[in-house]
Amino acid sequence: MLNQFGALLKKRALTPLLFSGQYGIEREGQRIDHQGQLQQTVLPFKAGHPYLRNDFARSQAEMVTDYFSSRQQTLNQLAALNAVLLRQLKAGEMLWPLSMPPKLGDLKAIKVAAPTKSAQRYRENIGKKYGYRMQMMSAVHFNFSLPEKLLRTLFETDYHDQFADHYIAFHNAVYLKLAQNYLRYRYVLTYLLGASPLAESDFFQQQPGPSEMVRSLHMSQKYGYDNVAAQQVSLSSLTDYVTDLQRLLKTHELQGPRELYAAVRFHGQSLAQLPQTGVHYLELRTFDLNPFAPAGLTATDFSFLQLFLAYLLVLPSTPQTDLNAQLKHGAALNEAIALESPLNVSQAQTQLAQFMAGLKQFMLDYQAPQALQNAWQLMQKRVEDYRQTPSYQLCQMSQNQSLQSWGIKQARTFKKQVTTACYQLPGYLSFPLTSQLILAAAFRRGINVQVLDSQSAILRLNQQVVLGNGQSSLNTQSATLLVQNRFATKTVLGQAGLPVPPGATYQEMTSAIQAFATLPQQPLVVKPKISAHGAGVTVLLSPNKTDFKMAAKSAFAYDSTIMVEPYLNGTIYRFLVIDEQVAAIAECTPANVVGDGRHTLATLVQLKNQKRGKQTPFSPLPLDQLTKFDLQQQGYNLQQVLPRGQQVYLRLAADFATGSDAIDVTKEMDTSYQKLALTAAKALKLKVAGINMVIANLYQPLVPEQSNMANILSVTAQPELAVHEVPFFGQGQPVTQQLLKVLFAATK
Amino acid sequence: MLNQFGALLKKRALTPLLFSGQYGIEREGQRIDHQGQLQQTVLPFKAGHPYLRNDFARSQAEMVTDYFSSRQQTLNQLAALNAVLLRQLKAGEMLWPLSMPPKLGDLKAIKVAAPTKSAQRYRENIGKKYGYRMQMMSAVHFNFSLPEKLLRTLFETDYHDQFADHYIAFHNAVYLKLAQNYLRYRYVLTYLLGASPLAESDFFQQQPGPSEMVRSLHMSQKYGYDNVAAQQVSLSSLTDYVTDLQRLLKTHELQGPRELYAAVRFHGQSLAQLPQTGVHYLELRTFDLNPFAPAGLTATDFSFLQLFLAYLLVLPSTPQTDLNAQLKHGAALNEAIALESPLNVSQAQTQLAQFMAGLKQFMLDYQAPQALQNAWQLMQKRVEDYRQTPSYQLCQMSQNQSLQSWGIKQARTFKKQVTTACYQLPGYLSFPLTSQLILAAAFRRGINVQVLDSQSAILRLNQQVVLGNGQSSLNTQSATLLVQNRFATKTVLGQAGLPVPPGATYQEMTSAIQAFATLPQQPLVVKPKISAHGAGVTVLLSPNKTDFKMAAKSAFAYDSTIMVEPYLNGTIYRFLVIDEQVAAIAECTPANVVGDGRHTLATLVQLKNQKRGKQTPFSPLPLDQLTKFDLQQQGYNLQQVLPRGQQVYLRLAADFATGSDAIDVTKEMDTSYQKLALTAAKALKLKVAGINMVIANLYQPLVPEQSNMANILSVTAQPELAVHEVPFFGQGQPVTQQLLKVLFAATK
Repeated sequence: MLNQFGALLKKRALTPLLFSGQYGIEREGQRIDHQGQLQQTVLPFKAGHPYLRNDFARSQAEMVTDYFSSRQQTLNQLAALNAVLLRQLKAGEMLWPLSMPPKLGDLKAIKVAAPTKSAQRYRENIGKKYGYRMQMMSAVHFNFSLPEKLLRTLFETDYHDQFADHYIAFHNAVYLKLAQNYLRYRYVLTYLLGASPLAESDFFQQQPGPSEMVRSLHMSQKYGYDNVAAQQVSLSSLTDYVTDLQRLLKTHELQGPRELYAAVRFHGQSLAQLPQTGVHYLELRTFDLNPFAPAGLTATDFSFLQLFLAYLLVLPSTPQTDLNAQLKHGAALNEAIALESPLNVSQAQTQLAQFMAGLKQFMLDYQAPQALQNAWQLMQKRVEDYRQTPSYQLCQMSQNQSLQSWGIKQARTFKKQVTTACYQLPGYLSFPLTSQLILAAAFRRGINVQVLDSQSAILRLNQQVVLGNGQSSLNTQSATLLVQNRFATKTVLGQAGLPVPPGATYQEMTSAIQAFATLPQQPLVVKPKISAHGAGVTVLLSPNKTDFKMAAKSAFAYDSTIMVEPYLNGTIYRFLVIDEQVAAIAECTPANVVGDGRHTLATLVQLKNQKRGKQTPFSPLPLDQLTKFDLQQQGYNLQQVLPRGQQVYLRLAADFATGSDAIDVTKEMDTSYQKLALTAAKALKLKVAGINMVIANLYQPLVPEQSNMANILSVTAQPELAVHEVPFFGQGQPVTQQLLKVLFAATK
Repeated sequence: MLNQFGALLKKRALTPLLFSGQYGIEREGQRIDHQGQLQQTVLPFKAGHPYLRNDFARSQAEMVTDYFSSRQQTLNQLAALNAVLLRQLKAGEMLWPLSMPPKLGDLKAIKVAAPTKSAQRYRENIGKKYGYRMQMMSAVHFNFSLPEKLLRTLFETDYHDQFADHYIAFHNAVYLKLAQNYLRYRYVLTYLLGASPLAESDFFQQQPGPSEMVRSLHMSQKYGYDNVAAQQVSLSSLTDYVTDLQRLLKTHELQGPRELYAAVRFHGQSLAQLPQTGVHYLELRTFDLNPFAPAGLTATDFSFLQLFLAYLLVLPSTPQTDLNAQLKHGAALNEAIALESPLNVSQAQTQLAQFMAGLKQFMLDYQAPQALQNAWQLMQKRVEDYRQTPSYQLCQMSQNQSLQSWGIKQARTFKKQVTTACYQLPGYLSFPLTSQLILAAAFRRGINVQVLDSQSAILRLNQQVVLGNGQSSLNTQSATLLVQNRFATKTVLGQAGLPVPPGATYQEMTSAIQAFATLPQQPLVVKPKISAHGAGVTVLLSPNKTDFKMAAKSAFAYDSTIMVEPYLNGTIYRFLVIDEQVAAIAECTPANVVGDGRHTLATLVQLKNQKRGKQTPFSPLPLDQLTKFDLQQQGYNLQQVLPRGQQVYLRLAADFATGSDAIDVTKEMDTSYQKLALTAAKALKLKVAGINMVIANLYQPLVPEQSNMANILSVTAQPELAVHEVPFFGQGQPVTQQLLKVLFAATK
């Protein structure tokens, strides 16, 4: 019935949809220490955590992604979950990278995970029934649903007659075809992705293992994660599937549908109603973990699965009369490949090569996306040369029939990868650091995360709380607008009796220059009324008319009004206010290098930049015209070599976005200045505010009459969190956690 | 002591400050009808209104501006107050433009304004004491304070020794000098600005008036707004001033300091403490209304006062020994000029010319701003030719010794000027219309208005409520961010079960074009993920690849992601939601012209644009490449002449910012769609929202299953108010009032 599927897709120009769908990944893994010992402590995540939880054993962690309509989004979240999980494990605790468990030791010591009583009972039962060893294997599950638009369109244009106007019948038929073909051809995946050639020595104690290394113990029926029930559930029709499964449940051969350890499972609203309400997605189970990939599978693995599934849809359907034979044949072929030696050419080499050739023809014919074609290329090499398969390569890594030491090493590498720059979140590296910190905190705390737009970094947490790059529902629209405007901000602060620098505004160059003549000889700051991150701001240490004109021009480039203020002595501090509390305070040291008696300033800048990133608070040190000018004002140039220990500023105006260093001083700042920051936030009606203040001496209590002790320079309504979480020097402050706490409290 | 003032200002390069200061204007005026009858109804403004209130009589309105540091700001607010007052008067009610009242009729019919018991008593008393006639004159008062920076700097650099380190003494001395010189030279202003040559016939009944026309009855001592007390208060020192005034109060010769009808008055914290706490500002009183200026004085009048006051500061101080003689001389000269005939050269022509020559020298010497120099030029002409004076010109306007009919005509002109485009607010025409409506409503309701930044139109009302161009504290920062993003908005609405168009997003041209091939042949909309006011949005009625590419390119110019959706049939409506209520609904008809059988489309666009403004909802009709393309899609071109009555769209995409017409349908829309709008606002967490919906038939109740009945196209968190207040067709809706009400309720 569905043999014309591919031709019709082409006819209806729907082929691009063939390579899309909804995807979700589940990935399990054993927690070990550096000796490879299983870690039996309770996982540090709350019960009911949507992303991070236990599988069978306490030692066995599981990451579960949301459903996404793109490969990249799915993998991004998986990478993030992996990082969050690994970071949350205690020091020295890591994730075993292989599907077959590490040395298990005393089986009695293995603690079943027991988030609830019934979960405990279920696990104890399956532990008894299948043995703890089998339950300790770890897998990747790949959940997939077809694009609704593809099915709906084809149904309406071509299939409504054949299915008697019954859409769900057509929908289910497509899923059934997919599942059947999957079982016929999954041997290809077992060859390509199989990565469990051996088990550690204490695994095969009750049952003897294979005599030599294989492609995949875990994906084999004999030794793998499989059960008798899986063969008792027919895939000849969806009704049969449901009937068979229901019978097994009724006779208590299975405790629940999830005990069906089949290679493919149907998911829908309810088992009984599956034929009526339709399959929601297929669960492709028990893939071997890819031990070379930090998250258990690579983008190439994923792309190949997309291509493979698309191909299965256009391959001919299996005639009902031939079905059982074909499925049996597929299972036998899979078992043979799983249990053959990875150190030789496969016995199914011809079938594999033929399948891959057909797949190539298909991908060219249907214009598969480039990433999928690239994946084919890579997998084709594995077919052409068995030494390219992961199972072969793992054999090379083994020592004395063991992967224990290789696995520990690999685990250590993966853990180190995600714990060196904890302010970043793998999968979301292009997001602003503040957003990365929020995402990480949300994943950690089990808050549902939805990226509404990745380019603008708009997040929604628990379907309720919308957050941008520091923007939240805690601040209002008008307060945000107000503080974007330096002049309006200063006016409001001044009127509230708060200390702000004196100064004047100008709308034209001529009046600014005229006024300049009247100013006393003192250092000045020239800035635009509105600009982001201190753009167009120039400090003039000994202002002359030429420099002033240059500074004014640079400010006028951003706004039609410029502000001229005295440059105040003191250090600039960023106060982070969250809900009437000072959450953290960071000194903002202007972009600088420290002389070493050897390198020129230009080289020192390069050297320091190598250690910095691209995002605040690790933005690169500036090296532009203004740097040269600012250095010149201080009497330096870039070619100069400074004595060891001498610090020099590359920007006189301090801003975290232009290379300033953040130094935590939360515990040191006198409370009088903290009160000032709180009053300022209140005057501006900001619940969340970043307040920049110049303070002469942070230890000396403020005397309000002394105008030079503290002045508020600028305010932001969407403050950076990273400058406080990961300061350049000093103690990080848990401000992200605090923001989320307040945010969720306010939402209730 | 202060004779070196000017030289020191120059030395300290402070001369630009000489022409600045703080200004406030009070302006009175009689309410009349078209017959010139005084209007005795209660003024439609609340008691304690800060801007609009009564003077002596109910018929006498007074506008009081805030204090501003610029002429333009002061005049802007005055113009706005004038417009708001005139618009609030009932039809046929106007403002008499002259200082001398219109025909008073039966004095007993004049009702004293009585906002409070004590105000009533005070006014009844002065009415008895000075006669109702005198109290019925109207004036402009000019309040002025010197720039603090000028005084402080000069004090610190040059005067601290002379004033024994006592700043307030110096400060007061400067004000005293200014006041003394003002009294000596104010005759110049009386000549230049005098504009009350005659009184109506029933004015001089108790006291005989002058036998012929004069320059200024109102500014004369004999007939004007003056009292004996004014001569009993010495200006020889501030202490004398206070002592004299206190004595008059003690003996009940005056009811309060405000009964001192002097030409200049000192204001400070309290009368008794004036010498200690300092003069805050000078009140220059009883200027004649300029009857040729809608607001009672022109920018030139104002500029000349600035120049005049600056000159008085640098003119020599009057020696204490000579002071009384000089003040007496000044008063006599003023009286002579006030009461001489405006139809001849002044008897003080030599003094006037000398003064103006000195003033010119000063303004060149001190580089007075151009506007002030221009004012001098204009006033100089009045000195050179008495026929240029307002008093002379008014004489020409009089008929039978009466200005009654001229005054009525002038009043009518001024009223008409401000009541033809009531959605605009004079003084703030450069602001977005939404802001103009908010400003007008605030001035009307007596809400204190502060323009925090005029370029960004940031307002603060009652020192509490910050408003932008539709932005307020009712919406949050994150909800604002969310709805700026079309894709994120659509996602959230869709997930909330609300109807949104289907469609797809693309990050690259190639994938967009590839996907285009798969789309069914139907009209499309291509738009950027983020852009303001529908920029980069293209409708394709019969899409082909070339046009699609052009549309995609135009969208990619605004954002790196574009959205492609079917172009839905129906009409677009804007729902304005305020605080869980649909405040108004406007149909958004795409920019269009209607054929007349004569003109080409290009000409029709020009003709329609002549009637439109520059701001939403009267934005000009577009006449660009996209117009040509959209016309072409409909089978038209700009050179075509259409039959009478045939409407054609100049933009297929409707947007109020690109020439769409707003048609009010608030009362017509079926409630089911209103509920949809409210649910959408709720899902997006917006208290204030503009929701654009395409609806097939506004009268037909929504059937949720029918996806083509209504779809939400876009949402804004800072909706235009003007499209509802002043629709192109239909009833205006009082949405500004409603927004302010909710806003102030939320602030409490």
